[in-house]
Amino acid sequence: MPQATLIDGKAIAAALRAQIATEIAGIKAVSGLVPGLHVVLVGDDPASRVYVASKEKLAVEVGMNSVAHRLPADTSQETLLATLAGLNADDAVDGILVQLPLPRHLDTAAVIDAIDPAKDVDGLHPLNAGRLAGGKVDPEHLLVPCTPLGSMLLLRSVLPSLSGLEAVVIGRSELVGRPVAQLLLQADCTVTIAHSRTKDLPDVVRRADIVVAAVGRPHFVKGDWIKPGATVIDVGINRMPDGKLAGDVDFAEAVEAAGAITPVPGGVGPMTIACLLRNTLTAFKARRGG
Amino acid sequence: MPQATLIDGKAIAAALRAQIATEIAGIKAVSGLVPGLHVVLVGDDPASRVYVASKEKLAVEVGMNSVAHRLPADTSQETLLATLAGLNADDAVDGILVQLPLPRHLDTAAVIDAIDPAKDVDGLHPLNAGRLAGGKVDPEHLLVPCTPLGSMLLLRSVLPSLSGLEAVVIGRSELVGRPVAQLLLQADCTVTIAHSRTKDLPDVVRRADIVVAAVGRPHFVKGDWIKPGATVIDVGINRMPDGKLAGDVDFAEAVEAAGAITPVPGGVGPMTIACLLRNTLTAFKARRGG
Repeated sequence: MPQATLIDGKAIAAALRAQIATEIAGIKAVSGLVPGLHVVLVGDDPASRVYVASKEKLAVEVGMNSVAHRLPADTSQETLLATLAGLNADDAVDGILVQLPLPRHLDTAAVIDAIDPAKDVDGLHPLNAGRLAGGKVDPEHLLVPCTPLGSMLLLRSVLPSLSGLEAVVIGRSELVGRPVAQLLLQADCTVTIAHSRTKDLPDVVRRADIVVAAVGRPHFVKGDWIKPGATVIDVGINRMPDGKLAGDVDFAEAVEAAGAITPVPGGVGPMTIACLLRNTLTAFKARRGG
Repeated sequence: MPQATLIDGKAIAAALRAQIATEIAGIKAVSGLVPGLHVVLVGDDPASRVYVASKEKLAVEVGMNSVAHRLPADTSQETLLATLAGLNADDAVDGILVQLPLPRHLDTAAVIDAIDPAKDVDGLHPLNAGRLAGGKVDPEHLLVPCTPLGSMLLLRSVLPSLSGLEAVVIGRSELVGRPVAQLLLQADCTVTIAHSRTKDLPDVVRRADIVVAAVGRPHFVKGDWIKPGATVIDVGINRMPDGKLAGDVDFAEAVEAAGAITPVPGGVGPMTIACLLRNTLTAFKARRGG
């Protein structure tokens, strides 16, 4: 059997970061300015600490000014909102990211609503979600959630045109499924959103030229659900009992049917932070020119 | 051949208006307050004048305070924005609707952005679109575009549960196709959005338990595209050379295949203003209680 092309997210993310670094160097040479990314971390969740450290490190590597605001776990809603108000008002702050999940006593929706939409580099503010959903603004000029944006860049690395292709998105989360469906629609795909209530999910997935799996269940999508030659983007990152990472797609099966597929790890994962940096640069250019 | 059930939009809209009138009478009896709907009309487009007059008349019939602000065709962007700022600041104004289309010299997106989202009874502000797209707020508590909302009420009049049904939306406009897809997803349908770039549109439509046609082309959807027993919502209102109105669906053919179908006229059309009144009441209750 022919095996699918592996979509190398690690390499594509590195190339994107290199491109961002070049652009920032050019901006700095002309204006002396560099984009500033500010990450707000409340509490000491170990996984969140690791993510924030990675974001800081890669932001610095591409030449950004990177600041992490580490607040104690018992930070009040008022204090957090005051921190955000300060960052909103600071012209040197281009991107604001509040690391999720927040401790339970905080109102996440109100916190996200309090971020200046022009600095919302996670693309989660409802104003940014609404502009994406309206379909009138080129997503290039929007702050779009990072994982969906990364998924699209991976798709475009193997499919020069997406127009008219049947895309099936499995999962309808606010962070991934819903925005990636919007981006696929914007790219002129015929888009189906499937989810836990979908009947005959295998049959629905079998229609797809493009499958985006974002369900959070390891090996959920089977190889015989994949139309031969389809492109498969596996957003799932599930930690298995043996400590290894597994995607939402049964890779060993799907790689035999797909035309191209992302591995886990090394597929969508590395794209997420690269797209956060891309959004920070986009926000910088929109606010400060360059 | 068995013929489809006709979905009587005129009767369902009248029942909705009667229910709104009863609720307003109750609020008035307790508080002395009634919802205020303010429609802003720029210029003298004859069709827009007719629509605005209908909205005023029906708003008064359900017991609302109804005000039309008629501005000359050469109104500047600044003047229009100042008008909206005044309405935003006026506590007696619950709903603000800017009749579209605006004259070409005006920036429609900036005008809609200037409406207080809490008074945006057309549901077009990107903040409202983003809340709908996020999927976390019950649409009952949102200001949702009126025609999609009306389409959902018609669907629910014949289908007690939409969960797991395959819905195909034909058309991806900001006013109809996109928001109706969001509402169908929220109702747990498996949702496909088809459009001008969709390949094999008849085959895509044949999958559908629910078809929503919003393309603006008379008789575009043929009878043999309809799965036997499907529910068909025809959003199109096209004026034919003979002066009659025609939907986007070939009604004479589709009525033989569908299980239920909306006629044109008398289907979705009457629901739109009724849902505008419903949104105005929703906005009133959210802002002022009751």
